[in-house]
Amino acid sequence: MTLSILEQLEVVLASRKDADPDSSYVASLHSKGLNKILEKVGEEAVETVLAAKDAERDGDNSKLIYETADLWFHSLVMLSHLGGNHQQVLDELARRFGLSGLDEKAARDTQS
Amino acid sequence: MTLSILEQLEVVLASRKDADPDSSYVASLHSKGLNKILEKVGEEAVETVLAAKDAERDGDNSKLIYETADLWFHSLVMLSHLGGNHQQVLDELARRFGLSGLDEKAARDTQS
Amino acid sequence: MTLSILEQLEVVLASRKDADPDSSYVASLHSKGLNKILEKVGEEAVETVLAAKDAERDGDNSKLIYETADLWFHSLVMLSHLGGNHQQVLDELARRFGLSGLDEKAARDTQS
Amino acid sequence: MTLSILEQLEVVLASRKDADPDSSYVASLHSKGLNKILEKVGEEAVETVLAAKDAERDGDNSKLIYETADLWFHSLVMLSHLGGNHQQVLDELARRFGLSGLDEKAARDTQS
Repeated sequence: MTLSILEQLEVVLASRKDADPDSSYVASLHSKGLNKILEKVGEEAVETVLAAKDAERDGDNSKLIYETADLWFHSLVMLSHLGGNHQQVLDELARRFGLSGLDEKAARDTQS
Repeated sequence: MTLSILEQLEVVLASRKDADPDSSYVASLHSKGLNKILEKVGEEAVETVLAAKDAERDGDNSKLIYETADLWFHSLVMLSHLGGNHQQVLDELARRFGLSGLDEKAARDTQS
Repeated sequence: MTLSILEQLEVVLASRKDADPDSSYVASLHSKGLNKILEKVGEEAVETVLAAKDAERDGDNSKLIYETADLWFHSLVMLSHLGGNHQQVLDELARRFGLSGLDEKAARDTQS
Repeated sequence: MTLSILEQLEVVLASRKDADPDSSYVASLHSKGLNKILEKVGEEAVETVLAAKDAERDGDNSKLIYETADLWFHSLVMLSHLGGNHQQVLDELARRFGLSGLDEKAARDTQS
């Protein structure tokens, strides 16, 4: 079976959810609670917006990619904290756009 | 070849980038320009934060999933507007966490 | 007695808090509830950030002033919704910076 | 002459704009540049939103007042960085609501 990057990342995030807060950034976020995680989501959204303005001006997307990764990462920690997961978000996007999303993982597993 | 939901969504977003703004929400965002797209990223981030607070209170994640999908969707439109794509974001996440991300699509294509 | 702009605005906001939502924007915000008001605070914060980036680029602050006014206005509606007021915010700023804030209104009233 | 809290704060902010970044938080923000200041505006907006949600739940506004003061403070630093000031924001609010704002300071000075 081939796990997608988001699937692998979810495994990593789950493993760190109850780790020692002193040894893991993810564990420290969970131990500080939902408000701290949401502050980070908000911060990274603003940093993404600023990076996009600078990318438009400079013609260089590298910081934009970095900040968007931060934004998605912290939204995955948020979902994990509240018992959700990235597949629910992808399924919602698939539903809206009529994509063949719900079968994705099953199809891939069959191929493996 | 099996396209992931994000890959399919990227095809859809690209096809609508230059569509008639009167007939497509995505096209209307592009025609209004980067600031409008970034306003939406910011709005959806705040709505995600509010939905997370309510999810914690109510024990119901459905609105949170919906708003996170909105946030990711508008960040994909932002990347599309600036010539970036979701795979760059996933590659950045894979790089940070040492995931086997860079080989993901190649591996899946080989299986097909 | 001379009321400051913020004091006058607070009188206006209080008078509209229970007005007909169909006839007053402020009343419509209160009737839609706290989440709607906070979405507006978040939106205006992002629009302020974007206007500041454009002001730096263009050397023109007019949109920045407009958006900052929107941000402060909606934060005043938020305070009003929750039973707070702008003087508490000013008193907090005065406390932090050792300003003669707490006596301000009293001093001004004495002069009138 | 009696200066309002915001007027006094503006004097303080101006005096610190070119101070040693190692000795003044305001100076350090200016030396780090506009993006850093705007990140703080965004962060404080999100913290204000979270504090408002908790204030509604707990019936206690103290954190909300504190975070709103942080938000206003950083928006004043932003205005200062770009050559604007709080009076322009108040004048814009006065204009919108037909308040006797433009005469405010003159009236107060006359009384002194």
